[in-house]
Amino acid sequence: MKVSFQGEPGAYSEQAVFTYYGEVETVPCESFDAMFDSVASGKSDFALAPIENSLAGSIHQNYDLLLQHDLHIIGEYLLRVQHCLITMPGVNKSEIKKAISHPQALGQCAAYLRNLEIKPEPVYDTAGSVKMLKESGARDTAAIASRRAAEIYEMQIIEEGIEDNAENYTRFLAIGRESVIPTNEAKTSIVFTLKNQPGSLFKAISVFALRDIDLTKIESRPLQGKPWEYLFYIDFIGSMHDDVSIHALEHLGEYALTLRVLGSYPRFSK
Amino acid sequence: MKVSFQGEPGAYSEQAVFTYYGEVETVPCESFDAMFDSVASGKSDFALAPIENSLAGSIHQNYDLLLQHDLHIIGEYLLRVQHCLITMPGVNKSEIKKAISHPQALGQCAAYLRNLEIKPEPVYDTAGSVKMLKESGARDTAAIASRRAAEIYEMQIIEEGIEDNAENYTRFLAIGRESVIPTNEAKTSIVFTLKNQPGSLFKAISVFALRDIDLTKIESRPLQGKPWEYLFYIDFIGSMHDDVSIHALEHLGEYALTLRVLGSYPRFSK
Repeated sequence: MKVSFQGEPGAYSEQAVFTYYGEVETVPCESFDAMFDSVASGKSDFALAPIENSLAGSIHQNYDLLLQHDLHIIGEYLLRVQHCLITMPGVNKSEIKKAISHPQALGQCAAYLRNLEIKPEPVYDTAGSVKMLKESGARDTAAIASRRAAEIYEMQIIEEGIEDNAENYTRFLAIGRESVIPTNEAKTSIVFTLKNQPGSLFKAISVFALRDIDLTKIESRPLQGKPWEYLFYIDFIGSMHDDVSIHALEHLGEYALTLRVLGSYPRFSK
Repeated sequence: MKVSFQGEPGAYSEQAVFTYYGEVETVPCESFDAMFDSVASGKSDFALAPIENSLAGSIHQNYDLLLQHDLHIIGEYLLRVQHCLITMPGVNKSEIKKAISHPQALGQCAAYLRNLEIKPEPVYDTAGSVKMLKESGARDTAAIASRRAAEIYEMQIIEEGIEDNAENYTRFLAIGRESVIPTNEAKTSIVFTLKNQPGSLFKAISVFALRDIDLTKIESRPLQGKPWEYLFYIDFIGSMHDDVSIHALEHLGEYALTLRVLGSYPRFSK
């Protein structure tokens, strides 16, 4: 089984693939586009796409790619992002003068680095920073990346979980060519567009409220170039194969300008 | 007047500051935290914070920082992100073999680069890539960054607007220590929390629908560690000083667990 992810070997996305799928063959992809293409073309079986981060927000680009491809959401996974301080083997914490990583990871460890008087220095990627450090062999430098990146490059983890805010989660969606019929508790993701007029969202979500369907995500997105239309993303508890969800979706379909079900899939539980 | 932005000189955020505020003194900040602190401490007068991008989504971190500080939203600005292909002076397009920039910018120009057989090479920052190129003096390399970055470093713009998707906008919020009372068409941004139960959002937004108040943004965010509470961001047309908005907010305050008005400000118009 081959599973695509975006990034370099050792990226947090790759770590998520191994936790979610077990020991599969991973296919690193340069971009989200390439990741979706790899599944669509059959080069890989599945992809695990980050869709939202608790600090950084939703990744609209992956919603766009879901709409552009005839692929289905077949699962979800929640990864707690735990940054590691990584050095060459044998280095002591007190020797570290600077830390290299992606600017976002450096920002998420800013207070930790300040306390230790370690100077942050941005590079393009978290896993890439470990590779760079190994190549340079520098003893005064640490990289900030995933546990897996440290293991791949056989480097030393000085400390794990150095992020300032522990509530750092990334939600991933598993993407495949065939839809699934979830048997246990399910979630369904939909995208729809509405006319931009007062009360339109209120009317749209009445189809869920009237049926006591629980929403777990809602997000609006203005359609640039179409100032009178809005795109909405909603996740709700239930499967598109349940009677009550079928009725709610039919009801929404009457009112929405467009509606697409991206998939029903087993809800993530720890 | 001093206005803070996050990034290096020549960043898209700095370009937004000059377009929105005119010729002011800009204060580059390493992180969003530092940017908010600079306004709170009086080191600068205002900040211009990116809050959402049409391709990348909302920047939750800046919502968090708004909640952590006693600051107000006093304006908004929409920047169309136009990437430039930048080289050393006198270089021809045909000489370019590789392009350096932030991975997100490279990703947004992927098809353009592929067509010209230019190899993307990620670095940590867009404006930083122009600085690096100038220092190296390489003639086979281009940087991808803003027009302003090219101007600061006196480099040549080979082509402007090379992004694959022209619908690439970033919305910025102007942040200040004192709130404003908008006189023309206004927008108001609020954050509130609700109990996670079916129909709770439907009830909450009824306070706007019943008064024909137009929502321009809605986004939910699960509160990690509090699985039974959700945070919501809503922007609506109107000022918190209008009677109808005052009633809607009072009405919402009865039902929501918490409610904070982040500011009322003039709506952006081109």
